[in-house]
Amino acid sequence: MLGECLENVRKTVPLVHNITNYVTVNDVANVLLACGGSPIMSDEPMDVVDITTICGGLNINIGTLNEKSIEAMRMAGKRAKELGHTILLDPVGAGASKLRTDTASTLIKELSPTCVRGNISEIKTIAVGSGTTKGVDADVADAVTEDTLDSAVAFVKKTAADLKTIVAITGAIDLVSDGERCFVIRNGRPEMGRITGTGCQLSGMTTAFLVANPDKPLEAAAAAVCTMGLAGEIGFSNMQPGEGNSTYRNRIIDAIYNMDGQTLDKGAKYEIR
Amino acid sequence: MLGECLENVRKTVPLVHNITNYVTVNDVANVLLACGGSPIMSDEPMDVVDITTICGGLNINIGTLNEKSIEAMRMAGKRAKELGHTILLDPVGAGASKLRTDTASTLIKELSPTCVRGNISEIKTIAVGSGTTKGVDADVADAVTEDTLDSAVAFVKKTAADLKTIVAITGAIDLVSDGERCFVIRNGRPEMGRITGTGCQLSGMTTAFLVANPDKPLEAAAAAVCTMGLAGEIGFSNMQPGEGNSTYRNRIIDAIYNMDGQTLDKGAKYEIR
Amino acid sequence: MLGECLENVRKTVPLVHNITNYVTVNDVANVLLACGGSPIMSDEPMDVVDITTICGGLNINIGTLNEKSIEAMRMAGKRAKELGHTILLDPVGAGASKLRTDTASTLIKELSPTCVRGNISEIKTIAVGSGTTKGVDADVADAVTEDTLDSAVAFVKKTAADLKTIVAITGAIDLVSDGERCFVIRNGRPEMGRITGTGCQLSGMTTAFLVANPDKPLEAAAAAVCTMGLAGEIGFSNMQPGEGNSTYRNRIIDAIYNMDGQTLDKGAKYEIR
Repeated sequence: MLGECLENVRKTVPLVHNITNYVTVNDVANVLLACGGSPIMSDEPMDVVDITTICGGLNINIGTLNEKSIEAMRMAGKRAKELGHTILLDPVGAGASKLRTDTASTLIKELSPTCVRGNISEIKTIAVGSGTTKGVDADVADAVTEDTLDSAVAFVKKTAADLKTIVAITGAIDLVSDGERCFVIRNGRPEMGRITGTGCQLSGMTTAFLVANPDKPLEAAAAAVCTMGLAGEIGFSNMQPGEGNSTYRNRIIDAIYNMDGQTLDKGAKYEIR
Repeated sequence: MLGECLENVRKTVPLVHNITNYVTVNDVANVLLACGGSPIMSDEPMDVVDITTICGGLNINIGTLNEKSIEAMRMAGKRAKELGHTILLDPVGAGASKLRTDTASTLIKELSPTCVRGNISEIKTIAVGSGTTKGVDADVADAVTEDTLDSAVAFVKKTAADLKTIVAITGAIDLVSDGERCFVIRNGRPEMGRITGTGCQLSGMTTAFLVANPDKPLEAAAAAVCTMGLAGEIGFSNMQPGEGNSTYRNRIIDAIYNMDGQTLDKGAKYEIR
Repeated sequence: MLGECLENVRKTVPLVHNITNYVTVNDVANVLLACGGSPIMSDEPMDVVDITTICGGLNINIGTLNEKSIEAMRMAGKRAKELGHTILLDPVGAGASKLRTDTASTLIKELSPTCVRGNISEIKTIAVGSGTTKGVDADVADAVTEDTLDSAVAFVKKTAADLKTIVAITGAIDLVSDGERCFVIRNGRPEMGRITGTGCQLSGMTTAFLVANPDKPLEAAAAAVCTMGLAGEIGFSNMQPGEGNSTYRNRIIDAIYNMDGQTLDKGAKYEIR
């Protein structure tokens, strides 16, 4: 089932407009190409309406937001919404600054995104309107573990239902819910946290999966999350002595490039609650 | 002949000012270093005139243009033109938005660039003043193939003559013309299209080749195109099982780093029409 | 001694706020993660005060400065200074443009940074208030060699004393001084100059080392410099036939990722003058 979602990306080559941070933007582009999509980047208000019009999806990532790019996010988002395009929001650092928290909240209200993907601390910040989380990584106190899994699943379901969106919370255990069902995903490696931008990469890829699978958005988002996690496992198994996080980054993207639907179906580790 | 152009880059270490997109800028810098040049990036209007003054060439790439960087492109370009410096324009996404199409046209008119390098759809957009192409990749309908080669060669010659510049159209077959002669180049690998920014990298490198070979600009541009394509072939031949587009990117830059004039002369596949 | 400084980074995971250029920002983030720190990037004036407040250190790099980011540097720097945070300034291209020279001087005056790290030409520009250096690489005439070492050591000591900061000058021989003592470091490889951003990466890492070792800043800065140089040696020893500067970049970051205090203590090559 999830494998088919990946195959649909490769078949349809969805064009994704990214308004994303300049830290990990190159990796986002290469991951989109690796999974079979096609990336375009544009964050100038005078440019984004034209660009988003020719795309199938819009990936908004606030990792290095600024006054102009926020304006661009709102303009592109408004246009994408009018056109019925897929919109994904990655609220990087929500909770770490007032500007980020406010921008994430505003964008959710104005754009009704198809999907919101973040770490548990960012999503908690959004769910309650303000937060105490710090930095771009999740607070350890918030971490989703086997012990806290039941309440985390209930939280993600409620948040998805309240926001009328798919919510994807990624961490040691990943949760993807549309408000009714929740994929609990156990792919991935802890070492992925030592690479900058695996979350940003996943957001770009998830947008492509959603565009390519309009009739089953929950499965599409879950398939993207499993693809990233499984690529993390495959990439790690290919690591040679002396290699570290920089080469690991390449090996993960390479694993996405080489993944097919069958490999994904075989390697995806999830249950549905 | 082409090998000598590469050797001249390594001997003279041309300083290239890049006003380029933030997606592929790191790869552009590393490719410039790999081929023997030296990169500087600056896109602040208050900074660019000083910076371009100390350089030998200016590489303008509109991949993530914005209001301020367009101003910087015009200011830097004006200064570079006054100084007789090499100017290259990469009209990324011309045809995909009005802002990109207009900016590319304005820059060509104002700056009379030494070289314009893009895909066939971007160059068609520029040649006719407006276009219907979509995204940052060439439209399949526009592709230069053996079947359409004669008309494509005529088109690139006419465009180069009309614009009084060297035009380099890259794709499955690459065409480089100064309006009179046209290099038809068959180096490269289709897999290069699955890496973000090989075009941007080539534009940076071409600028360095043009600066280092002021007396034979057509050969210099053709040599840069052959270098990129040949590096794509060498990099591909070094790929190991499990590797994909991210590692391929590194292997291509590595191949440029290790290329010498003799290897280029031996591996370059071109005819002159 | 230096090894302990590295271990302290791994133990305390210092959060570093980076206002840095978009050319090498991804590598800066991955190097900070590789050495055990945690990076955040933000350069929007409305965002930086909140972000720097939750961090331990601020890394300011003027490599692609612009009007807005200069404002952000001053605002973040003011706040970081009030909070007693570590501040590092990397004056990329000081001497190459008036804006860069003036900005570097203003930031030093206003922020009294804990450390200034640059190449010899940039530091000379700062020390005398204006400069004739060109580009982002050091002028060959300025290079620190065994022949000019005595006067270079005297220069770095005087500059550090005058500016009341730690000054780190990196090149073939690295000098790190607090005005009284000077570490003369002979780690590294000349091939590191063919990779974009090893200096920027070092500035990010040095900030993390300074935050994690508040009681011995000179040793902390020297340890970061030795870590970078030693990683350059280890990475180079891992190079395979056909590899070049792009893969070398990955191998250096990988070597930092895998380095421990013992390896650093064993491999660090320095004398104190």
